[in-house]
Amino acid sequence: MTDAATPSVEGGGYSLPSPYLLFLGDNTEPGFAKTAFGLRDWAGDRCLGEHALPAATVSTGLERMTPAAAAARGARSMVIGVANQGGVIPPSWMPELLAGIAAGLDLVAGMHTRLATIAPLREAAAARGTRLIDLRVPLSGLPIATGRRRTGRRLLTVGTDCALGKKYTALAIARGLSARGVDATFRASGQTGIMIAGEGIAIDAVVADFATGAVELLSPDAAPDHLDVIEGQGSLFHPAYAPVSLALLHGSQPDLFVVCDQPGRSGILGTAGYPVPSIDAVIEQTILLGRLTNPAIRCAGISLNTDGMEGTAAADLIAATGKRLGLPAADPIRGGAAFERLLDACQR
Amino acid sequence: MTDAATPSVEGGGYSLPSPYLLFLGDNTEPGFAKTAFGLRDWAGDRCLGEHALPAATVSTGLERMTPAAAAARGARSMVIGVANQGGVIPPSWMPELLAGIAAGLDLVAGMHTRLATIAPLREAAAARGTRLIDLRVPLSGLPIATGRRRTGRRLLTVGTDCALGKKYTALAIARGLSARGVDATFRASGQTGIMIAGEGIAIDAVVADFATGAVELLSPDAAPDHLDVIEGQGSLFHPAYAPVSLALLHGSQPDLFVVCDQPGRSGILGTAGYPVPSIDAVIEQTILLGRLTNPAIRCAGISLNTDGMEGTAAADLIAATGKRLGLPAADPIRGGAAFERLLDACQR
Repeated sequence: MTDAATPSVEGGGYSLPSPYLLFLGDNTEPGFAKTAFGLRDWAGDRCLGEHALPAATVSTGLERMTPAAAAARGARSMVIGVANQGGVIPPSWMPELLAGIAAGLDLVAGMHTRLATIAPLREAAAARGTRLIDLRVPLSGLPIATGRRRTGRRLLTVGTDCALGKKYTALAIARGLSARGVDATFRASGQTGIMIAGEGIAIDAVVADFATGAVELLSPDAAPDHLDVIEGQGSLFHPAYAPVSLALLHGSQPDLFVVCDQPGRSGILGTAGYPVPSIDAVIEQTILLGRLTNPAIRCAGISLNTDGMEGTAAADLIAATGKRLGLPAADPIRGGAAFERLLDACQR
Repeated sequence: MTDAATPSVEGGGYSLPSPYLLFLGDNTEPGFAKTAFGLRDWAGDRCLGEHALPAATVSTGLERMTPAAAAARGARSMVIGVANQGGVIPPSWMPELLAGIAAGLDLVAGMHTRLATIAPLREAAAARGTRLIDLRVPLSGLPIATGRRRTGRRLLTVGTDCALGKKYTALAIARGLSARGVDATFRASGQTGIMIAGEGIAIDAVVADFATGAVELLSPDAAPDHLDVIEGQGSLFHPAYAPVSLALLHGSQPDLFVVCDQPGRSGILGTAGYPVPSIDAVIEQTILLGRLTNPAIRCAGISLNTDGMEGTAAADLIAATGKRLGLPAADPIRGGAAFERLLDACQR
């Protein structure tokens, strides 16, 4: 069933108009505002301000403004920057979302509940001529992958599991290399990444037959010295998400990959009886499978998410991991000399 | 965008009402009627008759009857059993499809063009209260895979490439074992297989995040001696479809797999520069990746598609392949003692 509301490749895919007004709802739990914080930290130049209900206690620190005021100052979309239990839109948000539409802003969301399924929003947006952009809606018009080798260089972040730093690592590498003058582009493969980059494709929301083709589209031919830094998803060792990870590996045909791991995590998220694989196993499997579309694939280094560890203990673990594997290892959040060595390896 | 026409798991997924009336259009090319022939050969008890335009020269040999006559004799759906260039529905078919709806039959299609996007069909079906069943529409309501080990036994057909006999092999094994009194069920993962089985899930049309979960649903817990024979898709070595193949491998958690190959095919279909892998490489890769969800996975044997080969040459190749790999090898279409030995291995 195709319909006019379905985003298509021909229609520009998920391309998000900015600047954004970040919507925080009535959120009181910082953990649920990670999207808004990520946008502030990684896409500050795309964020004009924030809007929240009086009950909200969480803030990004950006200037507070109403949708009408934001629109008057050039905002083009209102991005829902908070999640809540169950991924639904509470009734208390509705007047604010409708105010955003009335102000002429597009609404952007990556939640399970789709904006376009909520009749009052759909009708208001149609009447005002604005868009409801649901980043989890499968794109139409995607190609089947060809496997053709593309020009330019590519780096993919892969993981021992999901939700442990693949997006953050890709962003930090792209930013770090750009600061060194390298022509590097972050390529977003998930909802939050797309909001940060302003474009991209949510690969996990693509129909399986087209998943690899979508990744090929995400990282097109480029100049020989250009480096695409592609946000990975899931893990080849995750019993639910490995096909998404394989689509990213085959489609991005990376020259380099960085393995992301969270020390201390023992079980694969959301499963029972699936241990987190060793970094060594992930390196081996990634090379074995990645060789299909890029025989020269190799591991550039390791990104450790040492969040919550004491500084010296983290530094020791990073050093020991790098030494054991003979590869640069770093925590991009901690940065420092270790991260500079990881950037050196990504630049080679 | 959800809508009432989207098939859902809660709504029974793709469950096809039979008996079928097979629609052959105005087809004059037997190669384009493979679906109808497959239904006649593998689901004869679900097929009541055929319906064709006067211009058609191809026939299944089943009794010809109008949609109204078929409905009077108990038919419940009209299945489009022919493909044509581009997968579109020509104007000449429209009166016949509308006659099917008028007779109260559901329409079933696996074409790229979706029945539900054709306004006259949509309106007629809504008015008559019949269904338009597009087997390529992604199912809604699918679960994320858990990786939990299920009861019962499972066999998956895998391939060196796509379109070389994985469906046929699974059907032949399920039929052969059933004839021996084994409690075996064919599980369909593609459009034609679903029409044959009357149910199933087109895995390539599932959103990537849910692909493995869909396979888990396709082959549920069963009695200890029950064998699900699951139709594979694509190939782990196909640069476009490997994620679909991996979802089938992880989700079906097979105890046994049979590798399907077509001797003489050198390049992966639809690609340039991708050689067909050796059977040995497919065995190795399937075990390596399949171990994640079933550590006891092993290869039961080899299915060779020797279509077009002379009989003695085919028999020699089958024998040589089996001997070289130390595994039973057979062409299920040729059957014979070699196929019985393959069935023996699937039964163990």
